[in-house]
Amino acid sequence: MAVNAIAQDAARLLDTAARAAREAAGTVARAPAPVKTAALHAAAAALRARTEALLAANAADLEAAPGLTDAFRDRLTLTPARIEAMAKGLEEVAALPDPVGRVLSEWTRPNGLVIRRIAQPLGVIGMIFESRPNVTADAAALCLKSGNAVILRGGSESLRSATAIHACMVEGLRAAGLPEAAVQVAPTADRAFVGAMLRASGLIDLIVPRGGKGLVTRVLEEARVPVLAHAEGLCHTYIHAAADPAMARSILANAKMRRTGVCGATETLLIDAAIAPTLLPLLIEDLRALGCDFRADDRARTIVPGLTAATDQDFATEWLDAILAVKVVDGIDAALAHIRRFGSEHTEAIVTQDEAAARAFLDGIDSAVGLWNASTQFCDGGEFGFGAEIGIATGRLHARGPVGVEQLCTYRYHVIGTGQTRP
Amino acid sequence: MAVNAIAQDAARLLDTAARAAREAAGTVARAPAPVKTAALHAAAAALRARTEALLAANAADLEAAPGLTDAFRDRLTLTPARIEAMAKGLEEVAALPDPVGRVLSEWTRPNGLVIRRIAQPLGVIGMIFESRPNVTADAAALCLKSGNAVILRGGSESLRSATAIHACMVEGLRAAGLPEAAVQVAPTADRAFVGAMLRASGLIDLIVPRGGKGLVTRVLEEARVPVLAHAEGLCHTYIHAAADPAMARSILANAKMRRTGVCGATETLLIDAAIAPTLLPLLIEDLRALGCDFRADDRARTIVPGLTAATDQDFATEWLDAILAVKVVDGIDAALAHIRRFGSEHTEAIVTQDEAAARAFLDGIDSAVGLWNASTQFCDGGEFGFGAEIGIATGRLHARGPVGVEQLCTYRYHVIGTGQTRP
Repeated sequence: MAVNAIAQDAARLLDTAARAAREAAGTVARAPAPVKTAALHAAAAALRARTEALLAANAADLEAAPGLTDAFRDRLTLTPARIEAMAKGLEEVAALPDPVGRVLSEWTRPNGLVIRRIAQPLGVIGMIFESRPNVTADAAALCLKSGNAVILRGGSESLRSATAIHACMVEGLRAAGLPEAAVQVAPTADRAFVGAMLRASGLIDLIVPRGGKGLVTRVLEEARVPVLAHAEGLCHTYIHAAADPAMARSILANAKMRRTGVCGATETLLIDAAIAPTLLPLLIEDLRALGCDFRADDRARTIVPGLTAATDQDFATEWLDAILAVKVVDGIDAALAHIRRFGSEHTEAIVTQDEAAARAFLDGIDSAVGLWNASTQFCDGGEFGFGAEIGIATGRLHARGPVGVEQLCTYRYHVIGTGQTRP
Repeated sequence: MAVNAIAQDAARLLDTAARAAREAAGTVARAPAPVKTAALHAAAAALRARTEALLAANAADLEAAPGLTDAFRDRLTLTPARIEAMAKGLEEVAALPDPVGRVLSEWTRPNGLVIRRIAQPLGVIGMIFESRPNVTADAAALCLKSGNAVILRGGSESLRSATAIHACMVEGLRAAGLPEAAVQVAPTADRAFVGAMLRASGLIDLIVPRGGKGLVTRVLEEARVPVLAHAEGLCHTYIHAAADPAMARSILANAKMRRTGVCGATETLLIDAAIAPTLLPLLIEDLRALGCDFRADDRARTIVPGLTAATDQDFATEWLDAILAVKVVDGIDAALAHIRRFGSEHTEAIVTQDEAAARAFLDGIDSAVGLWNASTQFCDGGEFGFGAEIGIATGRLHARGPVGVEQLCTYRYHVIGTGQTRP
């Protein structure tokens, strides 16, 4: 089939899906909280009841995709434990406070008008993700809880798994009397469908890409629809001269090595020259024992000989691995300058007992999250108390940091009068 | 000069300006409130002191632009009164509470982490506007107050006026010790500069277009940078069966005729069939006396003979003139269906004494602003208590309705710990 025809076909499919989603969004936006909760519980029950079918669909996906790396295969694989975790995840989202209709602020004007700013769902969300089939359930749950409709497009390698999971979500919607079009999966693996999603201004309100740098970059380049950008997590931990050494060691070990593949993992250590001679060797030893490797600047290598030399490229690298870039700095301004140059405005932390230094550091960065005396790995919706997250936003508009159900809402105003006219 | 070379030249100019703006933004984001206030007051003083020079620049603009309509000429013209209004406007913005650094919310996690969500300027704003040179001062004031840097690109017909006004803003920045690059005007009237602004992702954080439908549409189509969409204001006033007739008459007259050229002007009247026979003739008479014309559906024309027949196109028209589309409806659901089909999600009002009906109407619309028993013309930053507005946002992300200094901010998180690590 000619490329044009494929693209037109995909555009038509997307148009149909998006219009159905838009209509469903009008209903789920106004669905009472208990109805949405019931849908999520019913979907969780369906996941558990259909475990065999889910595993079979997943096995078919895995068999149809030869030549995968072990890590990729692992991300694709469903197990009974992972299915149970998916179901539990739906129930956790169900238990969250309903964000729709919250009165965000209220005030009375001198003329007596009462103005209320009220949380309202965004509308239709387009979720584009790679690898992990469980995102089908996680993202659908967050969108539904926040009163949004969603169109999910996962990786083509997990199409059968995603479709099987989707069937469980639909069972949940049916059980609660909600429109099935509130949660849809892409009806075709064709990449042209993604392109159509990205250009569906007016039909889709927000695109959420979740995956590797390649996916996010492609989405940001092509999209006409607003994108919740989740760019790199090139996070820094800055050990200030007045840091408590024991605290610094425990925080850094956690920030780097708790899980190296998460966006909140520290990728670069900045350490004040004043404290480096005594503390840096201990930090390196701690991390080496946990399996970490290093790329260090000259001053660090003078203190701890034998470390691999770091290049500027290294300081600009999000390792997502057991590798830490290390730089010795002269005070907060130097640390801030480094972060300004190499950071991705995601998450930075300072370890210090000096409150003034902490304030100066927190005020000096522009990142979505700044921590004082805590691990960068806390940049997470669950840890923030949001219950769950659809991702971490690193752009500047609408939402920054962990994106939970509240951030999947916008707002509107209700103005209550008694006949006022404007002079 | 070849088009390519012009585009490259404009791109280079924009790149230079945007980088300077980005650097200045780092400073103004952290400028203490009194410093920004001082800059605005000094700029106001400069406007007053340079009145003659401003008028001369404006006269040169007007002379160089033959063949303008009266309305356009009027929008372009500066007078001593308008210059004084500009200066007063700067002082009013200066008097607003400073939005930067507001703690939007704060909570403590079970593990003791204290999390704060804090308002922070967006960064660099690109303002693209038509006709009115005073926008140079108004927009610059709002951006500066909210800690943002701004690049202003007005219509080419008002380039000299805008440049002269800009000089006053720069005088204000200098007097307060703030970087001059915090407020810049486009150094060239070349349209390629606008194109470069729209594509400056990473350098400009938000584009605010302010002008006619043609400008806004072009910006939305070309922009890669997020745009604060200010689309049509196709506003509705719905007179419900349980409306107080006197209130309905006074509200409608204000909503339509107070000023017909504002986006909050009511363009379509929806009136319940139950009340139309007695009330519609009075409403038509009121408005006719004020100079309004009508496009009415068949049922309205049966009640008030002689009205021009309305087409669907009329119901989809933002008149910005003394013309009102009129439709008789059967209850709230019909009113909502009409608004859903023809509205622009801007502002809608219901007039009724029935609270349940009011709630159903307000809940049933998706518009940025919904009013009960008040005029749609209240959709305005000043009327909302925001002090001033840079425009009305009709998109769904980041901000909706009147955009004041608070809406020109985003937020970030500060997380205060005592050594916590994540399990």
